[in-house]
Amino acid sequence: MKEDKQRLFTIDEQQLLEEILLHRRDVRGNRFINKTLPKNTIDTIVQAGLSAPSVGFSQPWEFVLIFDQNTKNKIKATFSEETRKAALQFKDDKQQEYIKLKLEGIIEAPLNIAVFYKPKVGPVLGQISMPEMGKYSVVCAIQNMWLMARSLNVGLGWVSVLNPEKVKKVLNAPKENELIGYLCLGYTDMFYNKPELELKKWEQKKIQNEVVINEKYS
Amino acid sequence: MKEDKQRLFTIDEQQLLEEILLHRRDVRGNRFINKTLPKNTIDTIVQAGLSAPSVGFSQPWEFVLIFDQNTKNKIKATFSEETRKAALQFKDDKQQEYIKLKLEGIIEAPLNIAVFYKPKVGPVLGQISMPEMGKYSVVCAIQNMWLMARSLNVGLGWVSVLNPEKVKKVLNAPKENELIGYLCLGYTDMFYNKPELELKKWEQKKIQNEVVINEKYS
Repeated sequence: MKEDKQRLFTIDEQQLLEEILLHRRDVRGNRFINKTLPKNTIDTIVQAGLSAPSVGFSQPWEFVLIFDQNTKNKIKATFSEETRKAALQFKDDKQQEYIKLKLEGIIEAPLNIAVFYKPKVGPVLGQISMPEMGKYSVVCAIQNMWLMARSLNVGLGWVSVLNPEKVKKVLNAPKENELIGYLCLGYTDMFYNKPELELKKWEQKKIQNEVVINEKYS
Repeated sequence: MKEDKQRLFTIDEQQLLEEILLHRRDVRGNRFINKTLPKNTIDTIVQAGLSAPSVGFSQPWEFVLIFDQNTKNKIKATFSEETRKAALQFKDDKQQEYIKLKLEGIIEAPLNIAVFYKPKVGPVLGQISMPEMGKYSVVCAIQNMWLMARSLNVGLGWVSVLNPEKVKKVLNAPKENELIGYLCLGYTDMFYNKPELELKKWEQKKIQNEVVINEKYS
Protein backbone atom coordinates (compact mmCIF):
# COMPACT_ATOMS: atom_id res chain seq x y z
CA MET A 1 0.00 0.00 0.00
CA LYS A 2 1.33 3.42 -0.92
CA GLU A 3 1.49 5.85 1.95
CA ASP A 4 -0.12 8.85 0.21
CA LYS A 5 -3.46 9.69 1.73
CA GLN A 6 -4.95 11.00 -1.48
CA ARG A 7 -4.47 8.06 -3.78
CA LEU A 8 -6.40 8.81 -6.96
CA PHE A 9 -6.85 5.87 -9.30
CA THR A 10 -6.43 6.19 -13.06
CA ILE A 11 -8.75 4.98 -15.82
CA ASP A 12 -6.38 2.07 -16.51
CA GLU A 13 -6.54 1.07 -12.86
CA GLN A 14 -10.34 1.34 -12.81
CA GLN A 15 -10.50 -0.85 -15.91
CA LEU A 16 -8.25 -3.44 -14.33
CA LEU A 17 -10.69 -3.70 -11.41
CA GLU A 18 -13.50 -4.12 -13.93
CA GLU A 19 -11.59 -6.99 -15.53
CA ILE A 20 -11.11 -8.72 -12.17
CA LEU A 21 -14.83 -8.34 -11.37
CA LEU A 22 -15.80 -9.75 -14.78
CA HIS A 23 -13.37 -12.70 -14.60
CA ARG A 24 -14.37 -13.79 -11.08
CA ARG A 25 -16.17 -17.14 -11.21
CA ASP A 26 -17.79 -19.59 -8.83
CA VAL A 27 -15.45 -22.56 -9.10
CA ARG A 28 -16.56 -26.12 -8.41
CA GLY A 29 -14.88 -29.52 -8.11
CA ASN A 30 -14.75 -30.10 -11.87
CA ARG A 31 -12.14 -27.36 -12.21
CA PHE A 32 -9.94 -27.57 -9.09
CA ILE A 33 -6.50 -29.14 -9.52
CA ASN A 34 -4.42 -30.90 -6.92
CA LYS A 35 -1.82 -28.21 -6.22
CA THR A 36 -0.96 -26.81 -2.80
CA LEU A 37 -1.86 -23.21 -2.03
CA PRO A 38 1.20 -21.39 -0.63
CA LYS A 39 0.77 -19.96 2.86
CA ASN A 40 1.41 -16.38 1.74
CA THR A 41 -1.33 -16.73 -0.92
CA ILE A 42 -3.79 -17.86 1.76
CA ASP A 43 -2.70 -15.00 4.02
CA THR A 44 -3.22 -12.46 1.23
CA ILE A 45 -6.75 -13.77 0.68
CA VAL A 46 -7.58 -13.64 4.39
CA GLN A 47 -6.11 -10.13 4.65
CA ALA A 48 -8.44 -9.02 1.85
CA GLY A 49 -11.32 -10.18 4.04
CA LEU A 50 -9.97 -8.20 6.99
CA SER A 51 -9.97 -4.99 4.92
CA ALA A 52 -13.71 -5.27 4.17
CA PRO A 53 -16.11 -2.63 5.48
CA SER A 54 -17.97 -3.56 8.65
CA VAL A 55 -20.87 -1.93 10.44
CA GLY A 56 -19.57 0.24 13.30
CA PHE A 57 -16.09 -1.14 12.49
CA SER A 58 -17.22 -4.26 14.39
CA GLN A 59 -15.31 -6.71 12.13
CA PRO A 60 -17.65 -9.51 13.26
CA TRP A 61 -15.96 -12.29 11.30
CA GLU A 62 -14.20 -15.56 12.03
CA PHE A 63 -12.53 -17.78 9.43
CA VAL A 64 -11.96 -21.49 9.94
CA LEU A 65 -9.24 -22.81 7.60
CA ILE A 66 -9.86 -26.47 6.84
CA PHE A 67 -7.30 -28.75 5.17
CA ASP A 68 -8.22 -31.99 6.94
CA GLN A 69 -9.77 -34.63 4.68
CA ASN A 70 -11.80 -36.13 7.50
CA THR A 71 -13.50 -32.80 8.21
CA LYS A 72 -14.15 -32.27 4.50
CA ASN A 73 -15.80 -35.69 4.27
CA LYS A 74 -18.19 -34.78 7.07
CA ILE A 75 -19.08 -31.48 5.39
CA LYS A 76 -19.59 -33.30 2.11
CA ALA A 77 -22.08 -35.60 3.86
CA THR A 78 -24.33 -32.64 4.74
CA PHE A 79 -23.99 -31.34 1.17
CA SER A 80 -25.11 -34.72 -0.22
CA GLU A 81 -28.10 -34.87 2.11
CA GLU A 82 -29.19 -31.30 1.37
CA THR A 83 -28.75 -31.60 -2.39
CA ARG A 84 -31.00 -34.68 -2.48
CA LYS A 85 -33.69 -32.70 -0.65
CA ALA A 86 -33.18 -29.64 -2.83
CA ALA A 87 -33.54 -31.63 -6.06
CA LEU A 88 -37.14 -32.43 -5.11
CA GLN A 89 -37.99 -28.70 -5.20
CA PHE A 90 -37.33 -28.54 -8.95
CA LYS A 91 -39.78 -30.03 -11.44
CA ASP A 92 -39.33 -32.21 -14.53
CA ASP A 93 -36.51 -31.03 -16.85
CA LYS A 94 -35.21 -28.55 -14.28
CA GLN A 95 -34.82 -31.41 -11.80
CA GLN A 96 -32.89 -33.47 -14.35
CA GLU A 97 -30.66 -30.48 -15.04
CA TYR A 98 -30.16 -29.84 -11.31
CA ILE A 99 -29.02 -33.41 -10.69
CA LYS A 100 -26.39 -33.12 -13.44
CA LEU A 101 -24.82 -29.93 -12.08
CA LYS A 102 -21.58 -30.10 -10.08
CA LEU A 103 -22.27 -27.60 -7.32
CA GLU A 104 -19.29 -27.83 -4.97
CA GLY A 105 -15.63 -28.75 -4.66
CA ILE A 106 -15.38 -29.61 -0.97
CA ILE A 107 -13.15 -32.65 -1.45
CA GLU A 108 -11.32 -31.49 -4.60
CA ALA A 109 -10.31 -28.07 -3.22
CA PRO A 110 -7.11 -28.16 -1.12
CA LEU A 111 -8.52 -25.49 1.20
CA ASN A 112 -12.03 -24.96 2.59
CA ILE A 113 -12.86 -21.85 4.62
CA ALA A 114 -15.94 -21.68 6.84
CA VAL A 115 -16.80 -18.04 7.42
CA PHE A 116 -18.79 -17.19 10.53
CA TYR A 117 -20.59 -14.17 11.90
CA LYS A 118 -19.58 -13.72 15.54
CA PRO A 119 -22.13 -11.42 17.26
CA LYS A 120 -20.64 -8.78 19.52
CA VAL A 121 -21.80 -8.45 23.10
CA GLY A 122 -23.47 -5.06 23.49
CA PRO A 123 -24.76 -2.50 20.97
CA VAL A 124 -23.05 -2.09 17.58
CA LEU A 125 -23.08 1.32 15.91
CA GLY A 126 -25.25 1.10 12.79
CA GLN A 127 -26.76 -2.27 13.66
CA ILE A 128 -29.53 -1.22 16.00
CA SER A 129 -32.18 -0.36 13.38
CA MET A 130 -31.00 -3.04 10.93
CA PRO A 131 -29.86 -6.07 12.96
CA GLU A 132 -28.73 -8.02 9.88
CA MET A 133 -25.94 -5.51 9.15
CA GLY A 134 -23.37 -7.58 11.05
CA LYS A 135 -23.98 -10.55 8.80
CA TYR A 136 -23.80 -8.31 5.75
CA SER A 137 -20.35 -7.13 6.87
CA VAL A 138 -19.18 -10.75 6.80
CA VAL A 139 -20.52 -11.09 3.24
CA CYS A 140 -18.46 -8.03 2.23
CA ALA A 141 -15.40 -9.82 3.62
CA ILE A 142 -16.20 -12.89 1.52
CA GLN A 143 -16.58 -10.81 -1.64
CA ASN A 144 -13.22 -9.14 -0.99
CA MET A 145 -11.63 -12.57 -0.56
CA TRP A 146 -13.27 -13.82 -3.75
CA LEU A 147 -11.86 -10.96 -5.82
CA MET A 148 -8.43 -11.25 -4.23
CA ALA A 149 -8.38 -14.99 -4.91
CA ARG A 150 -9.22 -14.34 -8.57
CA SER A 151 -6.43 -11.75 -8.88
CA LEU A 152 -4.08 -14.45 -7.53
CA ASN A 153 -5.50 -16.82 -10.18
CA VAL A 154 -6.99 -18.96 -7.41
CA GLY A 155 -10.50 -20.35 -7.84
CA LEU A 156 -13.12 -19.94 -5.12
CA GLY A 157 -16.56 -21.49 -4.89
CA TRP A 158 -19.25 -20.62 -2.34
CA VAL A 159 -21.22 -23.69 -1.23
CA SER A 160 -24.66 -23.03 0.25
CA VAL A 161 -26.28 -26.45 -0.14
CA LEU A 162 -25.43 -27.26 3.47
CA ASN A 163 -27.18 -27.51 6.80
CA PRO A 164 -25.49 -24.69 8.75
CA GLU A 165 -26.15 -26.36 12.10
CA LYS A 166 -24.43 -29.55 10.94
CA VAL A 167 -21.43 -27.56 9.69
CA LYS A 168 -21.22 -25.85 13.08
CA LYS A 169 -21.32 -29.21 14.82
CA VAL A 170 -18.53 -30.65 12.63
CA LEU A 171 -16.36 -27.61 13.39
CA ASN A 172 -17.32 -27.44 17.06
CA ALA A 173 -18.35 -23.80 16.52
CA PRO A 174 -19.64 -21.70 19.43
CA LYS A 175 -23.43 -21.57 19.73
CA GLU A 176 -23.64 -17.85 19.01
CA ASN A 177 -21.67 -18.08 15.74
CA GLU A 178 -23.65 -18.13 12.52
CA LEU A 179 -22.36 -19.73 9.32
CA ILE A 180 -22.44 -17.16 6.53
CA GLY A 181 -20.44 -18.87 3.80
CA TYR A 182 -18.57 -22.09 3.16
CA LEU A 183 -15.80 -21.53 0.62
CA CYS A 184 -13.70 -23.96 -1.43
CA LEU A 185 -10.37 -22.65 -2.73
CA GLY A 186 -7.68 -23.97 -5.03
CA TYR A 187 -5.87 -23.60 -8.31
CA THR A 188 -7.91 -24.48 -11.39
CA ASP A 189 -7.30 -25.93 -14.83
CA MET A 190 -9.28 -23.01 -16.30
CA PHE A 191 -11.75 -20.26 -15.50
CA TYR A 192 -14.98 -20.13 -17.50
CA ASN A 193 -15.51 -16.87 -19.36
CA LYS A 194 -19.08 -16.59 -18.04
CA PRO A 195 -20.98 -17.98 -15.04
CA GLU A 196 -21.58 -21.72 -15.53
CA LEU A 197 -25.29 -21.31 -14.86
CA GLU A 198 -25.40 -18.69 -17.63
CA LEU A 199 -23.49 -20.92 -20.08
CA LYS A 200 -25.88 -23.78 -19.24
CA LYS A 201 -28.90 -21.47 -19.66
CA TRP A 202 -30.15 -22.16 -16.14
CA GLU A 203 -30.90 -18.42 -15.82
CA GLN A 204 -30.41 -15.44 -18.15
CA LYS A 205 -28.13 -12.50 -17.39
CA LYS A 206 -30.16 -9.47 -16.32
CA ILE A 207 -29.52 -6.12 -17.96
CA GLN A 208 -29.38 -2.75 -16.25
CA ASN A 209 -32.82 -1.63 -17.43
CA GLU A 210 -34.48 -4.58 -15.76
CA VAL A 211 -33.16 -3.80 -12.31
CA VAL A 212 -32.68 -0.02 -12.13
CA ILE A 213 -35.54 2.18 -10.98
CA ASN A 214 -35.45 5.94 -11.31
CA GLU A 215 -36.27 7.95 -8.19
CA LYS A 216 -39.02 5.62 -6.88
CA TYR A 217 -41.29 2.72 -7.78
CA SER A 218 -44.38 3.81 -9.70
CA MET B 1 -12.97 -6.81 -20.93
CA LYS B 2 -10.39 -8.77 -22.85
CA GLU B 3 -11.78 -11.71 -24.79
CA ASP B 4 -9.22 -14.33 -23.72
CA LYS B 5 -10.78 -17.01 -21.59
CA GLN B 6 -7.66 -17.68 -19.57
CA ARG B 7 -6.88 -14.25 -18.22
CA LEU B 8 -4.12 -14.69 -15.66
CA PHE B 9 -3.43 -11.68 -13.49
CA THR B 10 0.08 -10.53 -12.62
CA ILE B 11 1.52 -9.65 -9.23
CA ASP B 12 1.31 -5.95 -10.10
CA GLU B 13 -2.36 -6.36 -10.93
CA GLN B 14 -3.03 -8.27 -7.70
CA GLN B 15 -1.30 -5.52 -5.75
CA LEU B 16 -3.40 -2.88 -7.44
CA LEU B 17 -6.55 -4.67 -6.26
CA GLU B 18 -5.04 -4.74 -2.77
CA GLU B 19 -4.55 -0.97 -2.95
CA ILE B 20 -8.16 -0.41 -3.99
CA LEU B 21 -9.42 -2.62 -1.14
CA LEU B 22 -7.23 -0.76 1.37
CA HIS B 23 -8.22 2.72 0.15
CA ARG B 24 -11.98 2.06 0.14
CA ARG B 25 -13.68 4.12 2.84
CA ASP B 26 -17.17 4.67 4.20
CA VAL B 27 -17.78 8.28 3.22
CA ARG B 28 -20.16 10.56 5.10
CA GLY B 29 -21.61 14.04 4.61
CA ASN B 30 -18.55 15.81 6.04
CA ARG B 31 -16.54 14.78 2.97
CA PHE B 32 -18.94 14.90 0.00
CA ILE B 33 -18.59 17.87 -2.34
CA ASN B 34 -21.26 19.41 -4.53
CA LYS B 35 -20.19 18.07 -7.93
CA THR B 36 -22.41 16.17 -10.34
CA LEU B 37 -21.67 12.51 -11.00
CA PRO B 38 -21.52 11.89 -14.77
CA LYS B 39 -24.04 9.37 -16.10
CA ASN B 40 -21.34 7.02 -17.41
CA THR B 41 -19.69 6.97 -13.96
CA ILE B 42 -23.00 5.96 -12.39
CA ASP B 43 -23.51 3.31 -15.07
CA THR B 44 -20.05 1.85 -14.44
CA ILE B 45 -20.82 1.58 -10.73
CA VAL B 46 -24.19 -0.10 -11.36
CA GLN B 47 -22.59 -2.49 -13.87
CA ALA B 48 -20.08 -3.52 -11.20
CA GLY B 49 -23.09 -4.53 -9.09
CA LEU B 50 -24.53 -6.55 -11.96
CA SER B 51 -21.29 -8.56 -12.26
CA ALA B 52 -21.47 -9.74 -8.64
CA PRO B 53 -21.92 -13.42 -7.83
CA SER B 54 -25.47 -14.49 -7.03
CA VAL B 55 -26.89 -17.70 -5.65
CA GLY B 56 -28.18 -19.89 -8.50
CA PHE B 57 -27.41 -16.93 -10.81
CA SER B 58 -30.67 -15.44 -9.48
CA GLN B 59 -29.41 -11.82 -9.58
CA PRO B 60 -32.07 -10.88 -7.01
CA TRP B 61 -31.25 -7.16 -6.90
CA GLU B 62 -33.01 -3.88 -7.64
CA PHE B 63 -31.38 -0.46 -7.46
CA VAL B 64 -33.36 2.75 -6.94
CA LEU B 65 -31.37 5.80 -8.07
CA ILE B 66 -32.42 8.85 -6.08
CA PHE B 67 -31.48 12.42 -6.98
CA ASP B 68 -34.64 14.15 -5.75
CA GLN B 69 -34.11 16.42 -2.75
CA ASN B 70 -37.63 15.87 -1.48
CA THR B 71 -37.12 12.10 -1.31
CA LYS B 72 -33.74 12.56 0.39
CA ASN B 73 -35.37 14.77 3.03
CA LYS B 74 -37.88 12.04 3.84
CA ILE B 75 -35.13 9.44 4.15
CA LYS B 76 -33.15 11.81 6.36
CA ALA B 77 -36.18 12.06 8.66
CA THR B 78 -36.08 8.32 9.37
CA PHE B 79 -32.31 8.54 9.91
CA SER B 80 -32.80 11.32 12.48
CA GLU B 81 -35.48 9.38 14.32
CA GLU B 82 -33.45 6.14 14.38
CA THR B 83 -30.21 7.82 15.43
CA ARG B 84 -31.93 9.42 18.43
CA LYS B 85 -33.17 5.99 19.49
CA ALA B 86 -29.79 4.35 18.83
CA ALA B 87 -27.91 6.92 20.94
CA LEU B 88 -29.79 5.70 24.02
CA GLN B 89 -28.22 2.23 23.60
CA PHE B 90 -24.74 3.61 24.31
CA LYS B 91 -23.70 4.59 27.80
CA ASP B 92 -21.88 7.63 29.21
CA ASP B 93 -18.77 8.64 27.20
CA LYS B 94 -19.68 6.29 24.35
CA GLN B 95 -23.05 8.05 24.04
CA GLN B 96 -21.35 11.45 23.91
CA GLU B 97 -18.99 10.16 21.23
CA TYR B 98 -21.88 8.62 19.27
CA ILE B 99 -23.78 11.90 19.19
CA LYS B 100 -20.73 13.72 17.76
CA LEU B 101 -20.22 11.29 14.87
CA LYS B 102 -21.42 12.22 11.40
CA LEU B 103 -22.87 8.92 10.20
CA GLU B 104 -24.46 9.66 6.83
CA GLY B 105 -24.44 11.94 3.80
CA ILE B 106 -28.01 11.58 2.56
CA ILE B 107 -28.49 15.24 1.75
CA GLU B 108 -24.88 16.11 0.89
CA ALA B 109 -24.39 13.26 -1.60
CA PRO B 110 -25.65 14.04 -5.12
CA LEU B 111 -26.80 10.44 -5.57
CA ASN B 112 -28.45 8.01 -3.16
CA ILE B 113 -29.02 4.37 -4.16
CA ALA B 114 -31.48 2.16 -2.29
CA VAL B 115 -30.55 -1.46 -2.93
CA PHE B 116 -33.28 -4.06 -2.55
CA TYR B 117 -33.50 -7.82 -2.44
CA LYS B 118 -36.29 -8.94 -4.75
CA PRO B 119 -37.29 -12.53 -3.89
CA LYS B 120 -37.81 -14.82 -6.84
CA VAL B 121 -41.03 -16.77 -7.21
CA GLY B 122 -40.21 -20.48 -6.97
CA PRO B 123 -37.11 -22.35 -5.78
CA VAL B 124 -33.63 -20.86 -6.22
CA LEU B 125 -30.68 -23.19 -6.69
CA GLY B 126 -28.44 -22.94 -3.62
CA GLN B 127 -30.98 -21.07 -1.51
CA ILE B 128 -33.10 -23.95 -0.24
CA SER B 129 -30.93 -24.98 2.71
CA MET B 130 -29.74 -21.42 3.41
CA PRO B 131 -32.63 -19.02 2.69
CA GLU B 132 -30.57 -15.89 3.41
CA MET B 133 -28.30 -16.54 0.42
CA GLY B 134 -30.38 -14.27 -1.84
CA LYS B 135 -29.83 -11.33 0.46
CA TYR B 136 -26.13 -12.14 0.66
CA SER B 137 -25.93 -11.97 -3.15
CA VAL B 138 -27.24 -8.41 -2.97
CA VAL B 139 -24.53 -7.55 -0.44
CA CYS B 140 -21.90 -8.89 -2.87
CA ALA B 141 -23.31 -6.49 -5.47
CA ILE B 142 -22.98 -3.60 -3.03
CA GLN B 143 -19.37 -4.47 -2.24
CA ASN B 144 -18.55 -4.61 -5.97
CA MET B 145 -20.14 -1.17 -6.39
CA TRP B 146 -18.21 0.18 -3.43
CA LEU B 147 -14.86 -0.92 -4.85
CA MET B 148 -15.73 0.31 -8.33
CA ALA B 149 -16.76 3.69 -6.91
CA ARG B 150 -13.42 3.96 -5.10
CA SER B 151 -11.48 3.12 -8.28
CA LEU B 152 -13.40 5.97 -9.94
CA ASN B 153 -12.40 8.20 -6.99
CA VAL B 154 -16.06 8.43 -5.97
CA GLY B 155 -16.97 8.19 -2.30
CA LEU B 156 -19.66 5.81 -1.09
CA GLY B 157 -21.23 5.53 2.34
CA TRP B 158 -23.59 2.79 3.52
CA VAL B 159 -26.29 4.13 5.85
CA SER B 160 -27.96 1.59 8.13
CA VAL B 161 -29.42 3.85 10.79
CA LEU B 162 -32.79 3.75 9.03
CA ASN B 163 -36.17 2.11 9.47
CA PRO B 164 -36.31 -0.16 6.39
CA GLU B 165 -40.10 -0.14 6.32
CA LYS B 166 -40.17 3.67 6.25
CA VAL B 167 -37.63 3.73 3.42
CA LYS B 168 -39.79 1.27 1.47
CA LYS B 169 -42.84 3.51 2.04
CA VAL B 170 -41.02 6.64 0.84
CA LEU B 171 -39.91 4.81 -2.33
CA ASN B 172 -43.25 3.06 -2.84
CA ALA B 173 -41.37 -0.27 -2.93
CA PRO B 174 -43.24 -3.54 -3.52
CA LYS B 175 -44.19 -5.40 -0.34
CA GLU B 176 -41.94 -8.38 -1.10
CA ASN B 177 -38.81 -6.27 -1.59
CA GLU B 178 -36.37 -6.06 1.30
CA LEU B 179 -34.01 -3.12 1.83
CA ILE B 180 -30.44 -4.39 2.07
CA GLY B 181 -28.43 -1.18 1.81
CA TYR B 182 -28.94 2.54 1.45
CA LEU B 183 -25.93 4.11 -0.26
CA CYS B 184 -24.79 7.74 -0.59
CA LEU B 185 -22.43 8.53 -3.47
CA GLY B 186 -20.49 11.56 -4.59
CA TYR B 187 -17.08 13.10 -5.12
CA THR B 188 -15.17 13.93 -1.96
CA ASP B 189 -12.67 16.55 -0.81
CA MET B 190 -10.47 13.71 0.49
CA PHE B 191 -10.44 10.06 1.49
CA TYR B 192 -9.25 9.18 4.99
CA ASN B 193 -6.27 6.82 5.06
CA LYS B 194 -8.00 4.60 7.65
CA PRO B 195 -11.62 3.95 8.69
CA GLU B 196 -12.96 6.98 10.59
CA LEU B 197 -14.06 4.76 13.48
CA GLU B 198 -10.50 3.42 13.72
CA LEU B 199 -8.97 6.93 13.62
CA LYS B 200 -11.42 8.01 16.34
CA LYS B 201 -10.60 4.89 18.40
CA TRP B 202 -14.26 3.78 18.47
CA GLU B 203 -13.03 0.20 17.80
CA GLN B 204 -9.58 -1.32 17.22
CA LYS B 205 -8.50 -3.02 14.02
CA LYS B 206 -8.51 -6.81 14.44
CA ILE B 207 -5.47 -8.81 13.36
CA GLN B 208 -5.45 -12.12 11.54
CA ASN B 209 -4.58 -14.21 14.61
CA GLU B 210 -7.67 -12.99 16.42
CA VAL B 211 -10.09 -14.19 13.79
CA VAL B 212 -8.50 -17.19 12.08
CA ILE B 213 -9.10 -20.67 13.48
CA ASN B 214 -7.10 -23.69 12.29
CA GLU B 215 -9.14 -26.75 11.28
CA LYS B 216 -11.83 -26.41 13.95
CA TYR B 217 -12.77 -24.68 17.20
CA SER B 218 -11.20 -26.33 20.23
